[in-house]
Amino acid sequence: MYTSETKIRIHYALTDQMGIVYHGHYAQFYEIGRTEAIRDLGFTYKDIEKMGIIMPVVEIHTKFLMPAKYDDLISVKTTLKEMPHNHRITFFSEIYCNERLINTGHVLLYFMHSQTMSRAEMPEKLKEKLLKYF
Amino acid sequence: MYTSETKIRIHYALTDQMGIVYHGHYAQFYEIGRTEAIRDLGFTYKDIEKMGIIMPVVEIHTKFLMPAKYDDLISVKTTLKEMPHNHRITFFSEIYCNERLINTGHVLLYFMHSQTMSRAEMPEKLKEKLLKYF
Amino acid sequence: MYTSETKIRIHYALTDQMGIVYHGHYAQFYEIGRTEAIRDLGFTYKDIEKMGIIMPVVEIHTKFLMPAKYDDLISVKTTLKEMPHNHRITFFSEIYCNERLINTGHVLLYFMHSQTMSRAEMPEKLKEKLLKYF
Amino acid sequence: MYTSETKIRIHYALTDQMGIVYHGHYAQFYEIGRTEAIRDLGFTYKDIEKMGIIMPVVEIHTKFLMPAKYDDLISVKTTLKEMPHNHRITFFSEIYCNERLINTGHVLLYFMHSQTMSRAEMPEKLKEKLLKYF
Repeated sequence: MYTSETKIRIHYALTDQMGIVYHGHYAQFYEIGRTEAIRDLGFTYKDIEKMGIIMPVVEIHTKFLMPAKYDDLISVKTTLKEMPHNHRITFFSEIYCNERLINTGHVLLYFMHSQTMSRAEMPEKLKEKLLKYF
Repeated sequence: MYTSETKIRIHYALTDQMGIVYHGHYAQFYEIGRTEAIRDLGFTYKDIEKMGIIMPVVEIHTKFLMPAKYDDLISVKTTLKEMPHNHRITFFSEIYCNERLINTGHVLLYFMHSQTMSRAEMPEKLKEKLLKYF
Repeated sequence: MYTSETKIRIHYALTDQMGIVYHGHYAQFYEIGRTEAIRDLGFTYKDIEKMGIIMPVVEIHTKFLMPAKYDDLISVKTTLKEMPHNHRITFFSEIYCNERLINTGHVLLYFMHSQTMSRAEMPEKLKEKLLKYF
Repeated sequence: MYTSETKIRIHYALTDQMGIVYHGHYAQFYEIGRTEAIRDLGFTYKDIEKMGIIMPVVEIHTKFLMPAKYDDLISVKTTLKEMPHNHRITFFSEIYCNERLINTGHVLLYFMHSQTMSRAEMPEKLKEKLLKYF
């Protein structure tokens, strides 16, 4: 299992007139969590794109338990529960606010060749970085 | 069953550097679909909030089949498959682009009293409008 | 002078916890206004990009007179006050809500070759379309 | 003069199909800069709203010098050039990327009573914090 944690400060643009974070913005929090999880491995998603691999999102599932509010400092915990295989990778996210779990979700992405838009294997370099966690 | 359809033009702000619509924006397309589905009943979500009822989003599930691109005119088809009961309502969304199904999802929302943040029944007026479809 | 008008329905995602449209979203309304102004000429910004010309935004100036609110149907009036010359084009925007002027702004963009990122002339085809208005 | 600096990592959602940060998002960067400038004084904008004062944006002026790109770590430098007086406050922003100035702007906001929506003086507590810088 590989886990990484990152913090996000809620700015005004993310709130809506219910006085809470607009539900549609959580996909961005998951994205930031994934990006920082890869960076914590000593690698970046930007590097992956430079290798000609892109990772489009294929599925998102989200459950909202409690709202986040303006100026909250939320914590996004991102987990790979298993070693990705073939062209598929699933990131699990838990979002905490003031030590309470407020949101859970998971996102399935594919590795794809950006030139041909055909399915790709996970880049070797990312695989090497991940192997020690599984 | 109650179904409604609305169209959305993809503007630049919705694209990302993959040259497609950023995945996180589909939750907004579902929101627009729900809003117009309620308006087509001769009612508005704004009216519901004026009655002291809010409808926070509790779950979102999304599958991405094909990308939408800049300037595409997508069609969002929003369906209630069953009469909502208790405090729960689930909207199913299908998004089409150039006659092809590109995205499916469903969103669970609760009816809640905005003052007390306790669960509420569906407003009577909305119920009346919906009854003839089920 | 060339003027075009388009309507935008305010959805929930555009509101903030002040209960109004978040100020940062007006740049998108200007963008939608420009896009529809070009479409009304029988042309699209997408066509311009296909010709290898992009139009990055160089300056934005905005004044907020009154707020727009959830579910408002705002009207974006977009005007070219003079024939664009060289690589520069300035669009003026006026936004109306319930017949009242609520926002004014103008946006300067450059025509640029997307391959070389050097300044370009306005595409001939766009020039032809515009000439009759000046 | 009072100056504060904060960093923002560019995530995918902020990019557009030109492969750069969408111009409309810079208003959010200014907002984050203002918020952190107030926090650095030992105060928060959230505290100001709790006192019944809101700060709607009245004008925004932006110049784009160079684009920011995905995964860039931009630096937002926010400055008050003079002590705010009456109901008006103007924040100047400079955005740097890789040590180069890429964007400048300024934003005028009003202090207003949230209950009556009438103009207000700057909160005393904020005034006290700022006085030593002018």
